[in-house]
Amino acid sequence: GAPLGPSLKKKNIPQPSNALKSFNWSKLAENKLEGTVWMDVDDGRVFKILDLKDIEKTFSAYQRQQDFLMINNSKQKEAEDDTLGSKKIKELSVIDGRRAQNCNILLSRLKLSNEEIKRAILTMDEHEDLPKDMLEQLLKFVPEKSDVDLLEEHKHELDRMAKPDRFLYEMSRINHYQQRLQSLYFKKKFAERIAEIKPKIEALTKASKEILHSKNLKQLLEVVLAFGNYMNKGQRGNAYGFKVSSLNKIADTKSSIDKNITLLHYLITILEKKYPKVLKFQDDLQSVSEAAKVNMTELEKDIGNLRSGLKSVESELDFQKKRPQELGDKFVSVVSQFIAVASFSFSDVEDSLAEAKELFLRAVKHFGEDAGKMQPDEFFGIFDQFLQSFTEAQQENENIRKRKEEEERRAKMEAQLKEQREKERKARKAKANGEEDGGEFDD
Amino acid sequence: GAPLGPSLKKKNIPQPSNALKSFNWSKLAENKLEGTVWMDVDDGRVFKILDLKDIEKTFSAYQRQQDFLMINNSKQKEAEDDTLGSKKIKELSVIDGRRAQNCNILLSRLKLSNEEIKRAILTMDEHEDLPKDMLEQLLKFVPEKSDVDLLEEHKHELDRMAKPDRFLYEMSRINHYQQRLQSLYFKKKFAERIAEIKPKIEALTKASKEILHSKNLKQLLEVVLAFGNYMNKGQRGNAYGFKVSSLNKIADTKSSIDKNITLLHYLITILEKKYPKVLKFQDDLQSVSEAAKVNMTELEKDIGNLRSGLKSVESELDFQKKRPQELGDKFVSVVSQFIAVASFSFSDVEDSLAEAKELFLRAVKHFGEDAGKMQPDEFFGIFDQFLQSFTEAQQENENIRKRKEEEERRAKMEAQLKEQREKERKARKAKANGEEDGGEFDD
Repeated sequence: GAPLGPSLKKKNIPQPSNALKSFNWSKLAENKLEGTVWMDVDDGRVFKILDLKDIEKTFSAYQRQQDFLMINNSKQKEAEDDTLGSKKIKELSVIDGRRAQNCNILLSRLKLSNEEIKRAILTMDEHEDLPKDMLEQLLKFVPEKSDVDLLEEHKHELDRMAKPDRFLYEMSRINHYQQRLQSLYFKKKFAERIAEIKPKIEALTKASKEILHSKNLKQLLEVVLAFGNYMNKGQRGNAYGFKVSSLNKIADTKSSIDKNITLLHYLITILEKKYPKVLKFQDDLQSVSEAAKVNMTELEKDIGNLRSGLKSVESELDFQKKRPQELGDKFVSVVSQFIAVASFSFSDVEDSLAEAKELFLRAVKHFGEDAGKMQPDEFFGIFDQFLQSFTEAQQENENIRKRKEEEERRAKMEAQLKEQREKERKARKAKANGEEDGGEFDD
Repeated sequence: GAPLGPSLKKKNIPQPSNALKSFNWSKLAENKLEGTVWMDVDDGRVFKILDLKDIEKTFSAYQRQQDFLMINNSKQKEAEDDTLGSKKIKELSVIDGRRAQNCNILLSRLKLSNEEIKRAILTMDEHEDLPKDMLEQLLKFVPEKSDVDLLEEHKHELDRMAKPDRFLYEMSRINHYQQRLQSLYFKKKFAERIAEIKPKIEALTKASKEILHSKNLKQLLEVVLAFGNYMNKGQRGNAYGFKVSSLNKIADTKSSIDKNITLLHYLITILEKKYPKVLKFQDDLQSVSEAAKVNMTELEKDIGNLRSGLKSVESELDFQKKRPQELGDKFVSVVSQFIAVASFSFSDVEDSLAEAKELFLRAVKHFGEDAGKMQPDEFFGIFDQFLQSFTEAQQENENIRKRKEEEERRAKMEAQLKEQREKERKARKAKANGEEDGGEFDD
């Protein structure tokens, strides 16, 4: 690197006799030190004060083999080992404890040897040993440059390395390990991501068409326009059209003779009598509720991620093609085929999205909305909300009708009962009279 | 407006004999209709089919006085009214049911007459009749232009108006009602908002100074640097400084002889022995945990809102000053005074914020961080997290020490007990021997 600035003294760091565990810090580059607290800091002073031998003993990279399920017992056993003099070979563990522990957990769930993992990576997992969720975890344990440098110094002691250290070392032997891992993960997730995206685009396309073509919806709007113009006066009246959000205000107007009846209930009753076909508008708009759930921003973000993911894989393919092909390395053949198929699927998706956006724009303009500001979830949400309120109000009308019929039936029965009793009363009276007279009945 | 386009027929809307409730739609302007569904819609056709008399009866603006607590009984009573022929004067209600109901609820909680509300608005609430939460609600019921137009047509029937209608009408008589309401609300909230903002700015200023000036912190960093350079080799070692986020990685390195001891526990033990003053660094950094909660983006947004709120009130003041001052209207005098005081408080806050930002920048650079990217909550959060881990580890060290002392004490007592019993055993034996011999004791 660059020569040290005048204020940075050359370091004289004592060397431990054996390798120590590492401290996973983030060094500050020498050109970033100007004007910082570090100009006043000199660790040289500290080395004179520290008991370096004790640090060496406490943080030696060589330790008893860790069975991480036995942690509770380990203290006792370690004490024994120290007193007896260690007979076991101590394993080498430089990677810091937290990463080492998490890496161990992952490897034990994976249940594969390093060789098996390597082979799976190089063959693009031809035997399907690496499930998607494991791959996602593996991506968190990619050997960093500092790991690799550290482990390189110990490659003469490979057999002594603790599991995570050995794993990271072996993986660092694979060229472009991280890119291969990412390509494999992308390939496995691709079909699933496409399968999530397509129905959303389809819902937008269908719903836009339904909204544009429903004659029953148009007739409904005409009836609502008439109501509004009849009821609203002055500036609020005399309209040639209204914004579709107005549909969800219809129920806000309540009848003055029956507070349980809103303008929506009344409208439905009129439609049933005079425009029964219009009620079918609900059947015309079957895709609307799905479309109302589609967030365009997220959809475009997902598609953007797919696009850049494909580009990354293509990049890696170009890189690997230029290298000499080694035996057992199936990256180029497998990924070439994947790219061919995936690119086709993806441009299919891009075309569908373009079509859906165009149809949506037409639908929005068809109702006089501002295309730049109106999002699909908002637009279709208006219709979805209206469809739900409409259905509820229809049901409430039905309930009211049933109750009325019930009451009428009961009233009728009571009337009949009353009439019957009246008849019987008169009959008894007449009979009593007849017995007095002994002759004809009165009627 | 502009002459109707050739495709828009002149409307021939039937007129109801009485005013009807309104339907709270959003009209589409005539220049927005081109190319929309509305070009194919003609409500004229519908009027021929609708039973207009029935609509008039069902949605008459004149209705029985609504006591909105009696809704359950109303159906019965309305039936009675219709049969007997209404003796009560029906009240006029054009505002749609939902807004009317919410407005009624608000007015009943407010418990003030329209005159009292008016007077409170005009005097900038000199008698403190309008609590902040009520004002916030009132701002949701500002008469819209369409309300005002509608109600204007009924100003000859003021006494018949339903409560919400009357309220909206009366408020619309006050010039700039909405602006006055907003100014009043802003004035009432101002002190509270300033009181939320100031401690946040103060925490940033204090914490920045503490971080910059703590010698104990600097010494701590020097010790950690020494440890790191001793333990890390190769590219990872030989550092002149590290990023402060490294402080929270110290505990990730575990001892190879005792898994319960991390590098942090060990470091604290060394500090207690060799650098006891450094432990006071925690006392040096007392404002750090408060500062770690400050989100700069939100803070600036809050201050921005205050700034624009003040501007709006000043604008309104300018407007009102130009108008003839009416008796009872205290806006100009009250708001002039408020603006004078508030502007002063606010520039105080702006100055403090500028100072805090400058100090924060210095603190960030002092530790070699990228000023453009580092936010206060992230920066101070690092130190806050470290302070907490440090305290926990100190406590754990203490617990371990106590347990060790306990064990030693117990071991010592057992040893003493054992020694005691040994003595007694020998004494008894000697006595037994002595009785046999009849002579001197052995020792």
